[in-house]
Amino acid sequence: MLRFATFDPMDKQSENISPPVKVLEWVGDAADGHLRLLDQTRLPAETAFLDCRDAQAVWEAIRRLSVRGAPAIGVAAGYGMVVASQWVPEGSDFLTGIEAAAEYLESSRPTAVNLSWAARRVLRRAQRAAGGFERIREAMLDEAREIHAEDERMCLEIGRNTVDLITGCSGVLTHCNAGALATAGIGTATAGMYLAHARGHGFTVYCDETRPLLQGSRLTAWELMRAGIDAVVIADNMAGVVLREGRVQMVITGADRIAANGDVANKIGTYPLAVLAGHHNVPFFVAAPTSTFDMDLPCGGDIPIERRDAEEITHGFGPATAPEGVGTYCPAFDVTPAELISAIITNRGVIQPVDADNLRRVVGRAAQSSR
Amino acid sequence: MLRFATFDPMDKQSENISPPVKVLEWVGDAADGHLRLLDQTRLPAETAFLDCRDAQAVWEAIRRLSVRGAPAIGVAAGYGMVVASQWVPEGSDFLTGIEAAAEYLESSRPTAVNLSWAARRVLRRAQRAAGGFERIREAMLDEAREIHAEDERMCLEIGRNTVDLITGCSGVLTHCNAGALATAGIGTATAGMYLAHARGHGFTVYCDETRPLLQGSRLTAWELMRAGIDAVVIADNMAGVVLREGRVQMVITGADRIAANGDVANKIGTYPLAVLAGHHNVPFFVAAPTSTFDMDLPCGGDIPIERRDAEEITHGFGPATAPEGVGTYCPAFDVTPAELISAIITNRGVIQPVDADNLRRVVGRAAQSSR
Repeated sequence: MLRFATFDPMDKQSENISPPVKVLEWVGDAADGHLRLLDQTRLPAETAFLDCRDAQAVWEAIRRLSVRGAPAIGVAAGYGMVVASQWVPEGSDFLTGIEAAAEYLESSRPTAVNLSWAARRVLRRAQRAAGGFERIREAMLDEAREIHAEDERMCLEIGRNTVDLITGCSGVLTHCNAGALATAGIGTATAGMYLAHARGHGFTVYCDETRPLLQGSRLTAWELMRAGIDAVVIADNMAGVVLREGRVQMVITGADRIAANGDVANKIGTYPLAVLAGHHNVPFFVAAPTSTFDMDLPCGGDIPIERRDAEEITHGFGPATAPEGVGTYCPAFDVTPAELISAIITNRGVIQPVDADNLRRVVGRAAQSSR
Repeated sequence: MLRFATFDPMDKQSENISPPVKVLEWVGDAADGHLRLLDQTRLPAETAFLDCRDAQAVWEAIRRLSVRGAPAIGVAAGYGMVVASQWVPEGSDFLTGIEAAAEYLESSRPTAVNLSWAARRVLRRAQRAAGGFERIREAMLDEAREIHAEDERMCLEIGRNTVDLITGCSGVLTHCNAGALATAGIGTATAGMYLAHARGHGFTVYCDETRPLLQGSRLTAWELMRAGIDAVVIADNMAGVVLREGRVQMVITGADRIAANGDVANKIGTYPLAVLAGHHNVPFFVAAPTSTFDMDLPCGGDIPIERRDAEEITHGFGPATAPEGVGTYCPAFDVTPAELISAIITNRGVIQPVDADNLRRVVGRAAQSSR
């Protein structure tokens, strides 16, 4: 088990802590290196890694959710471009070949904006680079490493804006996985937890298991345990008792998309948590990078909500847990209105109270320019 | 599939509708008949029945949750006493033998008050009965049938007090199983649904799947479908969206125990539903027989809350869905404070608003005398 070095509050350097596991890593050099990924489909039973040595392997890893979470997918796509470039024949068609690779990688999860954004960014760097294909490939790897480093920095910045909240609590409640496993760093909702732990603060994180796909029990509890943080898994419907009994002093989740007025779309089950937190006068926080903000959406009602397959409810664990042919309703996300959110914690600062003006002030043009 | 006869509102007789399945049934006569039970452990995959011909078979059926729900367990225990009496040697020790049988049956689920209450009631009837052992056994079967009939009547009375609420809704939300499968009749929370359906009212029942043991998806959805009622299964954390989207106009659940001030202990997840219903101005109802009231408990804080095994969360469906050795918190019930409950619907009338005075007025001495 990895443990963080003890944090010295006087030394900002020591805040550069590592995530509990290397979710993504470039192994070797630009010419014949490859992308190594944690295979998240095998968690929590096994900690296994996938070595992706061609574009198809990266495509499949993204498609099968071996790597997941918008930030992590972006980083994977960046490195994926370098891997893909190793198979493009040298010569005048090199740039055409990597353009095709970007399109191919994008098709693995067409709705993942970070994927397309990262692949295009590496492509543009290649198009701008001077020299032969080897120099171009090195420039591409540099760009992919920059995306990776920016992601680590983004997590750390969110963590710095959250850590003092965490150190004020003996218990924290979270939902789904907005953790290290969803990024190339120490996560978003979890970032402050890792920093607080590194400072030596002892606390318990109650992890909603997060039906239907159980990211909370499979992933969040796993990464927190691995870092030595006390993780307690509960069924989603136990959060009410946890709040009522005063076991937690804050709730924090990630976000899938944030509208210009501060309404937050996130994993199904986030909205009822916000209502419950409000009922118990417990603050409800959202942690998200500025890339999550969609300033073109005036409010949460405009966010399209994906519906998932009935099988996720009726056969969520293999065998049928509901009668054959029963009706289901399975929205993947819900929208938490801004007025239920105590603050949105970003890498550029804290939005509090959550309203359009404060949001514009903190996020500024960052949201648009990062895509 | 069973369907109810169309209800004629002018004809009270037609309200005597059957439950969607015979949960319990006495087959044959007192001397060599037996208890037939629906084996609920095999739902929703299979509709299979257990023929219990000795006390051990009844003991095991109760222990293994083949029969469950306080009212149904009481009826099973009543018939179980008759089955047990068939194996007691004739002679002067007959009463001693059936006294031992009562003790034995009670040990199958020591905390189930209805079990002990019903077994003792049949025992007392035997002790009072005149004549030889055959006459005594017939008196015991009469008493068991009375318990059964009272239970059916209780359900019907709750249904009559609920049906007009249901016919005013296009959607209803429920949690866990307070249905026909938990009683010998048409259930408690479901009773009004069956009556409304029999009146020809079309509506949808959103069934929380009810982690960790999934009684909502396995049992409630099954029995409603079997009766031809539109059942839609949701994960527990989807109730917030269902309420926010206006899909339901009321929430109704059962109760495990109700304190003298109207606080209700029920399956974990009931309390957050009540908070969410209140947040959306949707009425939250509890349906329960007067035997559920414990007038000796001043308030819900005095109700002991059972904690269940970690495995129900970490291995709820067979394979591990959480990391090995992770902490869990798994309360089986939660307490909903009276002020969040719009009304408690009993077989003796409706408690509304829910406070100690109204509760005493409706329940009166019934609660104490029924135990």
